[in-house]
Amino acid sequence: MSDFVKSIFRNAVGSPIRELKKYSEIPGMISLAGGYPAPELMDAQGVQQVVGNLSTKQLTSAMQYGGTEGSKEFRATLATISQERELNCHPDEILVLSGSQQGIDLVARVILEPGDVVFVEAPTYPAALSAFRLAGATIHQLPSDKDGMIVSSLDEEMRRLKPKLLYLVPTFGNPSGRTLPLERRTLALQAAVRNNCVILEDDPYSELWFSVKAPPPIYSLRHSVPNAQNHCIYISSLSKTLAPALRLGWMLAPPTLLRAAVLAKQSDDMHASTLNQAIAATYIDNGTFADNLPRLRKFYKTGAEALCQSLHTHMGSRVEFDEPGGGMFVWARVDGIDTSQWLKRAIAAKAMFVPGVAFFASPDDTSWFRLSFASLDPDGIDQGIKRLSTVLDTVEA
Amino acid sequence: MSDFVKSIFRNAVGSPIRELKKYSEIPGMISLAGGYPAPELMDAQGVQQVVGNLSTKQLTSAMQYGGTEGSKEFRATLATISQERELNCHPDEILVLSGSQQGIDLVARVILEPGDVVFVEAPTYPAALSAFRLAGATIHQLPSDKDGMIVSSLDEEMRRLKPKLLYLVPTFGNPSGRTLPLERRTLALQAAVRNNCVILEDDPYSELWFSVKAPPPIYSLRHSVPNAQNHCIYISSLSKTLAPALRLGWMLAPPTLLRAAVLAKQSDDMHASTLNQAIAATYIDNGTFADNLPRLRKFYKTGAEALCQSLHTHMGSRVEFDEPGGGMFVWARVDGIDTSQWLKRAIAAKAMFVPGVAFFASPDDTSWFRLSFASLDPDGIDQGIKRLSTVLDTVEA
Repeated sequence: MSDFVKSIFRNAVGSPIRELKKYSEIPGMISLAGGYPAPELMDAQGVQQVVGNLSTKQLTSAMQYGGTEGSKEFRATLATISQERELNCHPDEILVLSGSQQGIDLVARVILEPGDVVFVEAPTYPAALSAFRLAGATIHQLPSDKDGMIVSSLDEEMRRLKPKLLYLVPTFGNPSGRTLPLERRTLALQAAVRNNCVILEDDPYSELWFSVKAPPPIYSLRHSVPNAQNHCIYISSLSKTLAPALRLGWMLAPPTLLRAAVLAKQSDDMHASTLNQAIAATYIDNGTFADNLPRLRKFYKTGAEALCQSLHTHMGSRVEFDEPGGGMFVWARVDGIDTSQWLKRAIAAKAMFVPGVAFFASPDDTSWFRLSFASLDPDGIDQGIKRLSTVLDTVEA
Repeated sequence: MSDFVKSIFRNAVGSPIRELKKYSEIPGMISLAGGYPAPELMDAQGVQQVVGNLSTKQLTSAMQYGGTEGSKEFRATLATISQERELNCHPDEILVLSGSQQGIDLVARVILEPGDVVFVEAPTYPAALSAFRLAGATIHQLPSDKDGMIVSSLDEEMRRLKPKLLYLVPTFGNPSGRTLPLERRTLALQAAVRNNCVILEDDPYSELWFSVKAPPPIYSLRHSVPNAQNHCIYISSLSKTLAPALRLGWMLAPPTLLRAAVLAKQSDDMHASTLNQAIAATYIDNGTFADNLPRLRKFYKTGAEALCQSLHTHMGSRVEFDEPGGGMFVWARVDGIDTSQWLKRAIAAKAMFVPGVAFFASPDDTSWFRLSFASLDPDGIDQGIKRLSTVLDTVEA
């Protein structure tokens, strides 16, 4: 008898990172796996205070249904944040998302037909791969170096494979930590325009810079690159800067795409939580959000430096990686090993990371792995890396 | 040049009810259109208090990412509520939704291939029609009478058209206000089992009974009807009983379907707001939720009676309708008129309702309309119906 589930879902696998979560709950486990913000960075008391101070009128409207696009107040707040990122947009160009992941899914739903080609950088964010796969897309991965996606053959590849979509995390990427330079951003957008492709730019990490800000988003180039206005979509999130729990993100897109995404969202969850929108708008408008960012940047910078130092100390030349300029991750490799095997031994030694195969559309290199410094202090990081190094020698090449 | 939006979204229209929202904001408008809970019924202060009383530990975990299935605590809470509805389920059988609308969309995504047939009752909930259309389904509507969907020819129709899904709001239906008797529930489930069809039961209103509770949900019959366990899915919502703003609902489904829905949700919005789950779990567990329900029932019962009385008083025999036993709606008709034309004149006279065509998959009768008594007191309802009746005579037959 049929179980009614259609084949694409029967054959789907869950997020490899979410599947690892159960191990992170083992007592004493040091997890360098998930990109969960450190609890001490999330201003729970601040959020509690905001709710306590909402007026009866604000609170009453924060209990009710809202527009699919998002509340007027919160969209205005997000337009201001976007302005600071040189995105230069009007509140009406914004769709409030229930987390930026939803933006990937909505774009996949409104653009992709089964068999359509999507370009991604290698490595890339696994939940994006999953959304594109569930939409029936054919995924083609493009090589990258320490500056992110290599663009030299992008135009030629686009002519050959005619992708509808190019998905990028161009700033402090997940998992790579890499940042695409301005010149590559421009070239990528020009190639997209020439080849009738849309760039979906996923930007959850740009506020988390360590010493210098990243180049402006690709979306900010839509007026300077000729005819580019209909060729880029921008999504971002408050999960890494305020709290994942609120499930709030936003999308900027050309009008026809935004309208289609609104229709898809209306059918999906109607709108993002009105209460959470009111909380976030107030928290950002009263300045607490901006005041909190330097603390986040310092914490993550310290974590990244500690992680890199620990890798040098405990693994020396066996491990290769580049130091990230922001974000939550270090992308590294140990030549000649299978990091999935390493993870099994590591879990027994109570330390965790994410094996790199999860981040490739077509995995062929098992030597990569992702480390997150987001949830730990330097001592925890050092302990974790030490445990990983201890079991490394037992992994077969 | 292409606008990148695929045809099914280019041709889609927004929710007819949401499109009416802008008129409801005209000063002095009396809206009998949207099914928005009355502000005085939503316990905003209670929610505020719950947030204020969350311990630091609760609050910290309520800021973080959560599991896609929903938090352990909230699923336990929902299992208890479900128990009271004779649904008899374990917390592990529950998927927490970001509003019950998401359940419709997830089911459509994991079951329906383009061209698959979906059965709905006529009239039915427009946002369900929209979700099925966006999934590329062919929708077939079944006739109903004052007891909801007529089941006498259901088996034959299922044999003929082989639907994958039958969507029902069997209790105090939207828009009909009708309730399917137990015998029809059983017969519908038997027909689904015989014809390899799944019933998607949408139940946002069952707590809002006026004098007597409705029969138990179809999902509660899954063990008593032979082989029925894989043939029903149940979704419900806290939007009508706690607050729409929290965007919280839940789904009960057989394991393979639930697993597929979890994968789809993971790719969509990852999980429902952790903060809102903590709020709702606490609010329900501390008894405030149950304490508040009698007040809701009384308010809506009073509204329904006032509405029916006002229809009698101001429109007499021109209007036909059945008095609902619960819920938020009266489904009515005026023979020989086009209620869309009537609405235009009504808006000019500052009163609103929803024309009935929105609730049919294949509209052929323009004489129906939906009235909601959810947001108004009896005086407001009477004023509204009076205004509608005043312009009724000017509508062409």
